[in-house]
Amino acid sequence: MPIITSLLDIDFYKFTMGQLVFHRSPEVPVKYAFKNRTSGVRLTDFIDEAELRDELDHVRTLRFTNSDLHYLLGTDEYGARMFSADYLAFLRELRLPDYYLEKNGDGYVTEFFGNWAEAIYWETIALAIINELYYRAKMAQLSRFGRDNVLAVGKCRLGEKIKALHRNPDIRFSDFGTRRRFSREWQDYVVNALREEVPEQFLGTSNVALANKYSLVPMGTSAHERDMATASILQSIGEDIRKAQNIVLEDWWAEYGWGLSIALTDTWGTDFFFSQMTREQAHSWKGLRQDSGDPFAFAEKAIRFYRDKDINPKEKLLIFSDGLDVDTIVKLQSRFSRRINLGFGWGTNLTNDLCFKPLSLVVKLVEANGQGTVKLSDNLAKATGRPADIRYYKRKLGYTGNTFQECRY
Amino acid sequence: MPIITSLLDIDFYKFTMGQLVFHRSPEVPVKYAFKNRTSGVRLTDFIDEAELRDELDHVRTLRFTNSDLHYLLGTDEYGARMFSADYLAFLRELRLPDYYLEKNGDGYVTEFFGNWAEAIYWETIALAIINELYYRAKMAQLSRFGRDNVLAVGKCRLGEKIKALHRNPDIRFSDFGTRRRFSREWQDYVVNALREEVPEQFLGTSNVALANKYSLVPMGTSAHERDMATASILQSIGEDIRKAQNIVLEDWWAEYGWGLSIALTDTWGTDFFFSQMTREQAHSWKGLRQDSGDPFAFAEKAIRFYRDKDINPKEKLLIFSDGLDVDTIVKLQSRFSRRINLGFGWGTNLTNDLCFKPLSLVVKLVEANGQGTVKLSDNLAKATGRPADIRYYKRKLGYTGNTFQECRY
Repeated sequence: MPIITSLLDIDFYKFTMGQLVFHRSPEVPVKYAFKNRTSGVRLTDFIDEAELRDELDHVRTLRFTNSDLHYLLGTDEYGARMFSADYLAFLRELRLPDYYLEKNGDGYVTEFFGNWAEAIYWETIALAIINELYYRAKMAQLSRFGRDNVLAVGKCRLGEKIKALHRNPDIRFSDFGTRRRFSREWQDYVVNALREEVPEQFLGTSNVALANKYSLVPMGTSAHERDMATASILQSIGEDIRKAQNIVLEDWWAEYGWGLSIALTDTWGTDFFFSQMTREQAHSWKGLRQDSGDPFAFAEKAIRFYRDKDINPKEKLLIFSDGLDVDTIVKLQSRFSRRINLGFGWGTNLTNDLCFKPLSLVVKLVEANGQGTVKLSDNLAKATGRPADIRYYKRKLGYTGNTFQECRY
Repeated sequence: MPIITSLLDIDFYKFTMGQLVFHRSPEVPVKYAFKNRTSGVRLTDFIDEAELRDELDHVRTLRFTNSDLHYLLGTDEYGARMFSADYLAFLRELRLPDYYLEKNGDGYVTEFFGNWAEAIYWETIALAIINELYYRAKMAQLSRFGRDNVLAVGKCRLGEKIKALHRNPDIRFSDFGTRRRFSREWQDYVVNALREEVPEQFLGTSNVALANKYSLVPMGTSAHERDMATASILQSIGEDIRKAQNIVLEDWWAEYGWGLSIALTDTWGTDFFFSQMTREQAHSWKGLRQDSGDPFAFAEKAIRFYRDKDINPKEKLLIFSDGLDVDTIVKLQSRFSRRINLGFGWGTNLTNDLCFKPLSLVVKLVEANGQGTVKLSDNLAKATGRPADIRYYKRKLGYTGNTFQECRY
């Protein structure tokens, strides 16, 4: 049984971004690269190249089925018919573009390239595959009881999370754990348990296949790659990369309006973001997403940002999605819920909290339109880009952050 | 699916005692009574009378099969052909005698009576049934995830026990948990995990069906009921009950010799036991079983007892079987293993360590040959018998213990 058996087994934001890309920059050549940020884990010790190749090749045989397209066409949670006929016609014909895979020392070089409109779908799929192959290998080293015990520990920890959620009934959260899941089956188990146990608190899942299977709201908006590509495209045609942040916001609003108007704040640091979001945008957009740095400091900053613009923060929503665990969620909720609305996109620690240390794997956009991309974020451990490009962005965008905190996941 | 589907799903000591009873006192009329020692648990809230009756009735339809008898005939772990042809012929015809069941307030009066040779088999069967019906009801109150989580917690705790056993590789133990098991399926899971994970340390199981299924040594020797009945029979014919302890030892040695020569020490207190076991018996018997009171004090006493008789304790074996948990096992092992051999009969906490508090249920022999029985033990919380009879035994046997410690299980 292959790991990925459906092209809906992917994060929802790939479609929301995918449609925008399809409408605006479909043929921009891009390159995504896989990166293992976990020190000390030699992936080649666990993952066989041929097996990885088989899994990736299998994905390229998959097509969006009629039912997949029905589901997407019927998606109305963020606005009626949010996916247009032309985009769905494009998806119907889509076959994921080729990839490049090579063993390199104790790791793998894994790259995805092609037109942005087509290559965009690889990210969470490739991550889910690499993760699951790794954990299968870890499991294969254990005894029968050992394997069963790993799942039992996972269930116990999930039980503890559910108890904590019951004790804090105001917490609202979503599953954002597709990319880092222990396995497809385990994410399915977790999502099913949450919808049964905390139906009022569990708002949905980023995984479209699971949203479909369990009648949940598919969750997600936009990611760093869109910001990064936008800046690189500007740079490639000699324009000022400072314009990128606002183009990103304007394009998104034009495509989806209020329904999906949660702005990602940290691609080049939140200070730059807040300097770019206009008063009008601050008023019209639903809220903001925090994905790096100190979430408590961010929340204070966001509240100040809204107040400065005469906006009552109680009308706005902050989504946290950076390496959450239940303690952080509870603390954020109790610290801020009387001042602003909160939501939590719970990833790795939700879908991969078993006996093994979660890997910190990413597939990042590294080039767009021939130009290297840059993400700075509010934690330089999460920065990506060539050193010279990073220096250029820092200078150009006035980035002054110096936080460097090892990624937990 | 009924809870009990085979008459081998019973503790081994029922056969070792059963054969002796069949050979020596088969027609002594006896009565066993069920007792729930767990305060605050109203069994009628959980167990439906008709269901309980169905389970007990089903047991009465069971017979020893040819394969069951093959297994028993082939049992040679404690001596060649330890079960004789006449006993096995008796078992072939056996049908468990009738029982009495009545709702009484918030509990059940459950009694088993008949000839000792036939009624003896009810004890662990009835306990396993009542326990499993109770936990089924507890489980039925939970959600799907909640039920799964109970099993996951059980597996996590079993995993912790296995880790502790790995850290203490000299510990040798057996499963004594049939009577208090969470369910038949769960005991099966535990036993299978232990034989896979700690094969050198896990010596066997008291459950004959599981010993058969997993090629393990069936474990067990003799229990209080034999001592109690022996005294009551003496009393019923006007003989001195003080003789009982030694008759018990002599009969057992005559039936099984060295192979099963682990003496149960606490029926009327270990002080009385040690006053009765002869120097010759102390030399010839393998060892002693501790089942109430302070196990550390008992071990010191046993070591002194052997030394006083010029016996090197290193040649003797102490079996502990009273409410063990892994901490107690590890402590006893580290405190005494250089001075005497140790074994552990791990019951309730092994087969019923999930999310629910284990019940303390017993089925005790209350009458033999028309005479009330008495067990004093080294913990008066475990004493059974009519108050007048208990007083009589205490006086007659010089019992001076005054320990009263609530039974954990």
